Amino acid sequence: MSGRRLGPGRVEAFTDGVVAIIITIMVLELKVPETGNLHALIGSAPVLLAYVLSFVNVGLFWNNHHHMFSAVERVDGRVMWANLFLLFWLSLVPFVIRWLDESAFAAGATAAYGIVLGLAAIGYSLTERAIIACNGKESAVARAIGSDWKGWGSIALYFTGVPLAFVSRWFAIALYVAVVALWLIPDRRIVRAFEGELRG
Amino acid sequence: MSGRRLGPGRVEAFTDGVVAIIITIMVLELKVPETGNLHALIGSAPVLLAYVLSFVNVGLFWNNHHHMFSAVERVDGRVMWANLFLLFWLSLVPFVIRWLDESAFAAGATAAYGIVLGLAAIGYSLTERAIIACNGKESAVARAIGSDWKGWGSIALYFTGVPLAFVSRWFAIALYVAVVALWLIPDRRIVRAFEGELRG
Amino acid sequence: MSGRRLGPGRVEAFTDGVVAIIITIMVLELKVPETGNLHALIGSAPVLLAYVLSFVNVGLFWNNHHHMFSAVERVDGRVMWANLFLLFWLSLVPFVIRWLDESAFAAGATAAYGIVLGLAAIGYSLTERAIIACNGKESAVARAIGSDWKGWGSIALYFTGVPLAFVSRWFAIALYVAVVALWLIPDRRIVRAFEGELRG
Amino acid sequence: MSGRRLGPGRVEAFTDGVVAIIITIMVLELKVPETGNLHALIGSAPVLLAYVLSFVNVGLFWNNHHHMFSAVERVDGRVMWANLFLLFWLSLVPFVIRWLDESAFAAGATAAYGIVLGLAAIGYSLTERAIIACNGKESAVARAIGSDWKGWGSIALYFTGVPLAFVSRWFAIALYVAVVALWLIPDRRIVRAFEGELRG
Repeated sequence: MSGRRLGPGRVEAFTDGVVAIIITIMVLELKVPETGNLHALIGSAPVLLAYVLSFVNVGLFWNNHHHMFSAVERVDGRVMWANLFLLFWLSLVPFVIRWLDESAFAAGATAAYGIVLGLAAIGYSLTERAIIACNGKESAVARAIGSDWKGWGSIALYFTGVPLAFVSRWFAIALYVAVVALWLIPDRRIVRAFEGELRG
Repeated sequence: MSGRRLGPGRVEAFTDGVVAIIITIMVLELKVPETGNLHALIGSAPVLLAYVLSFVNVGLFWNNHHHMFSAVERVDGRVMWANLFLLFWLSLVPFVIRWLDESAFAAGATAAYGIVLGLAAIGYSLTERAIIACNGKESAVARAIGSDWKGWGSIALYFTGVPLAFVSRWFAIALYVAVVALWLIPDRRIVRAFEGELRG
Repeated sequence: MSGRRLGPGRVEAFTDGVVAIIITIMVLELKVPETGNLHALIGSAPVLLAYVLSFVNVGLFWNNHHHMFSAVERVDGRVMWANLFLLFWLSLVPFVIRWLDESAFAAGATAAYGIVLGLAAIGYSLTERAIIACNGKESAVARAIGSDWKGWGSIALYFTGVPLAFVSRWFAIALYVAVVALWLIPDRRIVRAFEGELRG
Repeated sequence: MSGRRLGPGRVEAFTDGVVAIIITIMVLELKVPETGNLHALIGSAPVLLAYVLSFVNVGLFWNNHHHMFSAVERVDGRVMWANLFLLFWLSLVPFVIRWLDESAFAAGATAAYGIVLGLAAIGYSLTERAIIACNGKESAVARAIGSDWKGWGSIALYFTGVPLAFVSRWFAIALYVAVVALWLIPDRRIVRAFEGELRG
């Protein structure tokens, strides 16, 4: 048959586009300091730090997505919808950052940040499962994904942060930072699986 | 001859870019709750649901577009303009969502939502026809597209919703949700045509 | 040598990205009608028509760009900068549309529309010349581009429209519409050059 | 093994997406003249020139990125994070332009422009180093990058401009323009390395 395969290329390209836009339009939400001296940036420091945290967070999702899809051989409708579910929650990150900024890090907005990123983490796990179902349990990508304790750990941390935001916002923010620290180590599982091929 | 072919690659890439932006900038239209507690989200619930519906709607167009183009072998100017016509109407979705939000789901804005999505559905059908004209009636993609009763059904449902919006907005919204339910089943026609190749 | 070539792929991808964003963010500039009935759209009609005209205009640039680059074999720094010059002027289209809207189609804003699109047309011609210089006068793309009377004609029409905007805005707008009509015929020159390959 | 390699393709595509958005949304920050005549553009001239300078600046980063990555054979996590660091600072360019505009080129905003672009230049150098570490000192890309005096020169010029902005904004702006002049010559080092392949 002459048609092309339902390969991962276009899902990757679409994800790249959405993540590139999310990461870039967050900056449209930042309010410019009202005066022209550099001290004015101190007043903007909390929202700038929220921007940095979110940039790293979205960058993490993209980096791990990149690693995972480099081992994917085929996709189906379930993979595409799991991936869209992930992108939906990521797309709400700029909305939550604006809310954090305008409410001066109120408890509700801090909790919403955890809900949005926790659901994005669930979306990532759903995408992993859909990929394993589509490529088979013996496929390279399934063996590379392995047990995924980091995925489950970050979902648990985010949803622990949500009620904690109403006790103390700083507890919640500390948990969100902990998730980033957990993931900042690139996904060695898949990197290791490729090492033989890349360097051997 | 040494030049490259007018293949579908760049039309896909451009469509991915436009759809990725549409899906992401809709969130820029959402107004942040005025207070910082989670109850404040209840006031934002209607427009958040409109956002979810539109995200799923645009995701559906992209998913079906992905399936259809995976079987396309060549494109011409007519395919490109039919596809641009589709993208034009999709690009108005964020505008209509903002109008729905600011007018508190007024009848005119609810009707406009149906007009915009109905014309996008017509654009999708025009793209299908242009692809069949370009690739031939015996091509894999033409056989895969088949009778397209879902396309005609959704156009009919959207344009039935337009006058109904002036009778009751909830009738119109129910019809719009019905179209999404109709399409949420991924396009089995093309998936089936590929099954032999993908799994066999 | 093991490196990859400086092929046209990434220039195409970057152009697709920029054009996709331009075409989509124009809609962010549109002001929502103040009331919720469909009659309210009549007040928005002029700017909606300016949006349609600009969407078709930017779509034309992209379509012809697509046709031209499908025959390009190599690019160099000059091609990239000529293409960036083209994208710079295209990126100002949303700015001019907003100005047209807020000034209710004042003469200065109408003239600015012609300046911006005229300079974009010059950028397109510069890109054509840079491509011919890089690929050689005997290359497929050089023979396909040929005499380019449409390019020069549209530059002339746009810059005739600029002073006419101060006499009558409708003369200028008529000229801008004439350019679109001129280009709406897809670039048969290059299509013809490929016909043998595509259908033969 | 059946998986695909961690090649540079998706890092390039993601970078293209982010840069395309940055370059395009800067125009959303531009305020439209309050009247409709062309003289009104004179009041907008400083911010329009800042837009031109930034467009050229971001275009330079993209052009050199394109040249460099055309010689890259593999990427790893370090390359991806160095590249994200570069994109992070580039993404703040629209924010600084808006600040320059609203503060009428105040000293603090002018200094912030140098900080943001200086850190972007550091990000570019970090990406170069990560690529050399990943591809080997004897790789085509490592030989092509060579001594990189222009990279270090531009970092030095940007950070010299930051304190100078508080003495005279025009000194600082002159230095920023000098960096652009320095880079406007396309990266001959890598172009030369490819010449044999491209023209030979």
